[in-house]
Amino acid sequence: MCGSGTTKSVKPVKAFGWAARDSSGHLSPFKFSRRATREKDVTFKVLYYGICHSDFHNVQNERRITSYPVVPGHEIVGVITKVGTKVTKFTIGDKVGVECMVGSCCSCANCKDNLENYFPKMILSYGAKYYNGTTTYGGYSDIMVSDEHFVIKIPDNLPLDGDAPLLCAGITVYSPLEYHGLNKARMHLGIVGLGGLGHMVVKIAKVMGLKVTIISTSPNKKKEAVEHLGADGFLINANIFYKLQSAMDTVDGIIGTVFVVHALLLLIGLLKTNGKLVMVGSAIGGIKETQEKMDFAAKHNIVTDIEVIPMDYVNIAMERLLKADVKYRFVINIANSLKPI
Amino acid sequence: MCGSGTTKSVKPVKAFGWAARDSSGHLSPFKFSRRATREKDVTFKVLYYGICHSDFHNVQNERRITSYPVVPGHEIVGVITKVGTKVTKFTIGDKVGVECMVGSCCSCANCKDNLENYFPKMILSYGAKYYNGTTTYGGYSDIMVSDEHFVIKIPDNLPLDGDAPLLCAGITVYSPLEYHGLNKARMHLGIVGLGGLGHMVVKIAKVMGLKVTIISTSPNKKKEAVEHLGADGFLINANIFYKLQSAMDTVDGIIGTVFVVHALLLLIGLLKTNGKLVMVGSAIGGIKETQEKMDFAAKHNIVTDIEVIPMDYVNIAMERLLKADVKYRFVINIANSLKPI
Repeated sequence: MCGSGTTKSVKPVKAFGWAARDSSGHLSPFKFSRRATREKDVTFKVLYYGICHSDFHNVQNERRITSYPVVPGHEIVGVITKVGTKVTKFTIGDKVGVECMVGSCCSCANCKDNLENYFPKMILSYGAKYYNGTTTYGGYSDIMVSDEHFVIKIPDNLPLDGDAPLLCAGITVYSPLEYHGLNKARMHLGIVGLGGLGHMVVKIAKVMGLKVTIISTSPNKKKEAVEHLGADGFLINANIFYKLQSAMDTVDGIIGTVFVVHALLLLIGLLKTNGKLVMVGSAIGGIKETQEKMDFAAKHNIVTDIEVIPMDYVNIAMERLLKADVKYRFVINIANSLKPI
Repeated sequence: MCGSGTTKSVKPVKAFGWAARDSSGHLSPFKFSRRATREKDVTFKVLYYGICHSDFHNVQNERRITSYPVVPGHEIVGVITKVGTKVTKFTIGDKVGVECMVGSCCSCANCKDNLENYFPKMILSYGAKYYNGTTTYGGYSDIMVSDEHFVIKIPDNLPLDGDAPLLCAGITVYSPLEYHGLNKARMHLGIVGLGGLGHMVVKIAKVMGLKVTIISTSPNKKKEAVEHLGADGFLINANIFYKLQSAMDTVDGIIGTVFVVHALLLLIGLLKTNGKLVMVGSAIGGIKETQEKMDFAAKHNIVTDIEVIPMDYVNIAMERLLKADVKYRFVINIANSLKPI
C-alpha cells in the first residue's frame, strides 16, 4: 500500500486554502490540517494549480460522491520543503507536481502494471478518503503532502504555471495517443473540441509529427487553430453529412475531448479502415506514464496556453469555464495571491 | 477490377430461384438470367444456402437500398460445373462457396490489404449492381456465377449444409476475435446473445482454448449453452447492477452479437483494464481471411448447428427467424427442393 496514510499517527500540520461547503460550489477561505511528513512523504509549498473542468463538476457534486467541505485541485505544482526519511526520488527544493491520485494499493495487477489510475480503490487527490478514513484535500491550498510514489518530478526547463495543466489535461490526451498507437509521424489525427484538452492534443500531436484536423462546432476557432496552434485543417462539426463528406475515410484516429452529448456516426465515417475513435474520459494515466509525458513535454518545450489568475478570482473563473471562455486553462498563482487566514 | 462483369458481353444463361417483389418481403418463384461463365468466372450448382438475419432486413427494404425483385442469399455453397479459361484456383467438381461479396476494385488500399469488405464500392452478392449496371442475384437460386477471387474453397471434411453459415456468420465473429487479439488460450471472453452468431463464437472460442461466458436476456438458454455448446459460464443480462456485480472486471473481451438496442455500461464494467467490447455489425471479413477461417473450421471440425428446410418453407422460416425460433441457423436444401419453373 502506498499513499494510504495508515502508518502510525503523528500530529497533523495546519493548512489553509479555499473550499466549497455545499453543492452551490461557491469557494471561500477554509482552514484545515494535513498529515505531517511521514517516512515516504514529501511536503511541498504550492505555487500554482490548474483549474480542471472536473473541479467544477465536483464542487457542485454532479457525480454524487463529493463530501463537503471540499478543497478542489488536482493539477498542483510547487517546491519541496520537507522529505521523509525513506524518500528516495526527491530532495528539498525539487520542483514537483501532484495530479489526480494520492494513494493506491501498489500491489494489484493494475498497480503492478503502472496503471494505478485503473485500480478501483485508487485514492483521488481531493474529496476522497485515505484508507484510514481521513479526507483528502486538493491543491487550492498553501501546502500539499503526498507519498513520493504519486509525485511527479518537473524538469527545470518547464515553467511551473504553464506546466500545471499537463498533470491532468496533458496525460489524459497523451495516454490514448500512446496506447492506441496514434503517435506515428505522418498519421492524420482528428481532434473533436478545441478547449483545454483539445489544444493539448494539437501541441503533442504536432511534436509527434502528425497531421491534425480540428473538428469543432465553433467556426470562429478556425483562425486560432490554424494560425496560432498550427493545426493543418479545420472541420465544422455540424453533424450534417455533406459538410463532412469530403473528409470521409481520411483520418487514422480521432481523439474526442468534448464533454457534452454529441453524435458519433459522422465522426466514425471520417475514419480510415480500422481507424480509432477515442473518447477521453478522466481516466488520466498511471504515474510512470505521467512522468514520461512530463519528460516528453520538457524535451519538446510543450506548455499549456493559460490565463493566470489570483485566488480570489476562482468563482468567476468557474463561471467563465462553463461558458468555455478561456484560452485554454486557468492557472491560479497561489504563491502570490492566497492570503493566510 | 475483379468480379465487375465489365468484360465483353456474352449471352446470359437462364436461372431460377425465389425472389421478393416488394417490401412485404414475401418470397416466391422467379425466373431471371445470369452472365455466362467468363474467363475468370466459375459457375456452380447451388446445393445449400444459409438464411442470414440480414436477408430478412433486406427483403423488407429496411436499409432503403433494396431494388426489387431481389433474390437474397449470401451463404451459398455448391459444386462447380464450369470454369473460365483463365481460372487458376478451381476446377470442375470442387466444393465452393460465395459469401456477401462478388466484386470489388481489387486495386485500392483496402483491397490490396485483403479487406475488400471495407472497399466502399464493394459489390454485394444480391440486390446490388455490377459496375456495368446489371443486378446481382443471390443464392436463393439454382446456379451461381462469380469471379474466382470471391469464391471460397470448402475443404472436403466439412458438410456443405452445416458449413454454409460459416460464410457470413462464421467470418463475422472470427474476424474480430483475430483482429482484436481475443484468440489466446485461457483468455476469458464474454458473448452477448446466443443466436446464429453467438453460438458460432462459442464454438470458435472454445477451439481456441478460451473460457467463455454467455451474457443473455434468456435464462432458458443456460442449460443449452453450458451442456450442449460447452460454455463455461452464463450471466443474465438484465442491465441490473447487482446481477452482474460479481462478474465485474473479469473478462478480457466481449463480442456483442445482438441486433437490438441495448445498454452497454454494465457490459463495459465486466471488462478487465483495457478489455475490448466489440459490437459486430455485418462487416464480415476479406476474402483471404474468409478462406483462412474456412480452413480453420475444417481443421477443428467446426460446423454450425442448423435446421435444414425445403425451399417452400422459406417464408415461414423468416417469420420464425424474427422470433429467434431457430437453433441456430436455417439452411435451405436447395438441390432437393427448388423446383424448376
